[in-house]
Amino acid sequence: MKKLINAPEDAVRDSLAGLALAHMDVLRVFLSPLYVVRLDAPVQGKAGVISGGGSGHEPMHGGYVGKGMLDAACPGQVFTSPTPDQIEAATLAVNGGAGVLHIVKNYSGDIMNFEMAAELCQAKGVEVRSVVVQDDVAVENSLYTAGRRGVGTTVLAEKICGAAAERRYDLPRLEALCRRVCENGRSMGMALAPCTVPAAGRPTFQLGEDEMEMGIGIHGEPGRERVPVMSAREVAERLSEAVLADLPFREGDRVIAMVNGMGGTPLMELYIVYHELARLLKGKGIAIARRLVGNYITSLEMAGCSITLLRADDEMISLWDDPVMTPGLRWGV
Amino acid sequence: MKKLINAPEDAVRDSLAGLALAHMDVLRVFLSPLYVVRLDAPVQGKAGVISGGGSGHEPMHGGYVGKGMLDAACPGQVFTSPTPDQIEAATLAVNGGAGVLHIVKNYSGDIMNFEMAAELCQAKGVEVRSVVVQDDVAVENSLYTAGRRGVGTTVLAEKICGAAAERRYDLPRLEALCRRVCENGRSMGMALAPCTVPAAGRPTFQLGEDEMEMGIGIHGEPGRERVPVMSAREVAERLSEAVLADLPFREGDRVIAMVNGMGGTPLMELYIVYHELARLLKGKGIAIARRLVGNYITSLEMAGCSITLLRADDEMISLWDDPVMTPGLRWGV
Repeated sequence: MKKLINAPEDAVRDSLAGLALAHMDVLRVFLSPLYVVRLDAPVQGKAGVISGGGSGHEPMHGGYVGKGMLDAACPGQVFTSPTPDQIEAATLAVNGGAGVLHIVKNYSGDIMNFEMAAELCQAKGVEVRSVVVQDDVAVENSLYTAGRRGVGTTVLAEKICGAAAERRYDLPRLEALCRRVCENGRSMGMALAPCTVPAAGRPTFQLGEDEMEMGIGIHGEPGRERVPVMSAREVAERLSEAVLADLPFREGDRVIAMVNGMGGTPLMELYIVYHELARLLKGKGIAIARRLVGNYITSLEMAGCSITLLRADDEMISLWDDPVMTPGLRWGV
Repeated sequence: MKKLINAPEDAVRDSLAGLALAHMDVLRVFLSPLYVVRLDAPVQGKAGVISGGGSGHEPMHGGYVGKGMLDAACPGQVFTSPTPDQIEAATLAVNGGAGVLHIVKNYSGDIMNFEMAAELCQAKGVEVRSVVVQDDVAVENSLYTAGRRGVGTTVLAEKICGAAAERRYDLPRLEALCRRVCENGRSMGMALAPCTVPAAGRPTFQLGEDEMEMGIGIHGEPGRERVPVMSAREVAERLSEAVLADLPFREGDRVIAMVNGMGGTPLMELYIVYHELARLLKGKGIAIARRLVGNYITSLEMAGCSITLLRADDEMISLWDDPVMTPGLRWGV
């Protein structure tokens, strides 16, 4: 295993210590229990927005803490759910008297621990609403997941709901918005090469020299099928066709599109995939209103990409355009 | 070779087509000859700032075109210099009557072709000044290079000089500033794993399972030494000691620091290296005034990182903070 780490057991903490030092104008990191929190939290009268999950998907979630996006993030060990005490502490830390929204990716451990934390917080008088992201069209059930996995739509939900909270949407309205985003977002990913969890020291799966995995999960969970390596055009077609058919998206829809790198794929290749995606959507009469091309929800150094499409209404697009100041997304400030 | 491309010969153009579609509010791409140009170029009365070089280092340089940074970028094929006609066309396109600064990385082909283009432009009455970046402390001469290679300081020079041009520095003052940035910037990189140029189809070099290359070039050129894999702490020490000793940086200096990923290294690891770097510099009484942590000057999917330190004065830091709106760097707008 070749990694720029000290010891596998220190990787997450060391990395968060670096994040805190690099962005001390935006966030701080509490070590015990471990969470990342916006510098000015709690913001009085504003509903808090929290997410979290296993580490190894950076910049998600710690890199999305800051004005206009998350109030806090709860990072677990690599590909491991955060514990209820982390989530509880983060929720209490960002509660400004208007309650807290939990945006949870659909993995069994995350669901269980966020639920437990929500109960603990509610017992202390803090109102919590939870929305589960389950946007991966690849497979119905999976390792670690009953139902669909939560992937790229999480990033878009965090941006849009973070902006809405900044505009002082109350908690029920924020929850309804987040559900609408999740209902209208779909994703699918693929891998050319696996990743290695530091504590394991071995690749999470094996792929032959001329194979790729379509529908891969962000922890390397099996996808729909293992196929021979295809061109970027074919990859964009396969991914976008699966995504489009699922909602389904229709002619005349406007979308926020994300072409996301899994961590080990050069930006050059992601723009090639975006070019193909834009061509395909244009042919179907679907307008890309906003887009992200880059590494936003990664799987350590996995090579590959995912496509997320969110059918967006005027409200979502307006919220998308609001200022955001986080390590991972920044504009308008 | 596993890559998200269509054909190797189309990779650069397809990628730039994607860049153009994704950022049509910022830049456009001309195909013949190939260059990326700021949407509102030429800006009358403003000195133009241009860079360029082989592709495969994205977001550099095309991703740094936009308000507050480059007026144009000239991308060659992967790891191949752009041709004089590209550079000439880009220079003429961004000339707003105040001349054009060429920021050139020190590689023999780049030097030769930028010089030829500068002569062609001057023959047409456009004043051109050129500054060569040669900040890599690893080796004196190298494949493709007489003298030191130009690497990470290029990104910082493009940001700072782009801001200065926006403030309407005239060309001689811009050139002097750029030279000062280059004189005060130093870099060194390392690799854990090689990259594969699409047209070649084979890795540019080989590394054993427990080896890393210290002082690697951004095209995989040999560095100082091949050593057993080290911890992130040791890597940060080795790189920063080489960089610090060279200028030399001294107690009391303020720096702009960049921990740059080579393309295939997860953000988690880059923040671990930044944490170590920050600790080391603090111990030496050197203050990090500003920093970048991420993929800024890459080598396709190479795994590894580089450290760049720029001894910065008040003027540089003030220019650094000015607004920038490019695909690769964005703040203040």
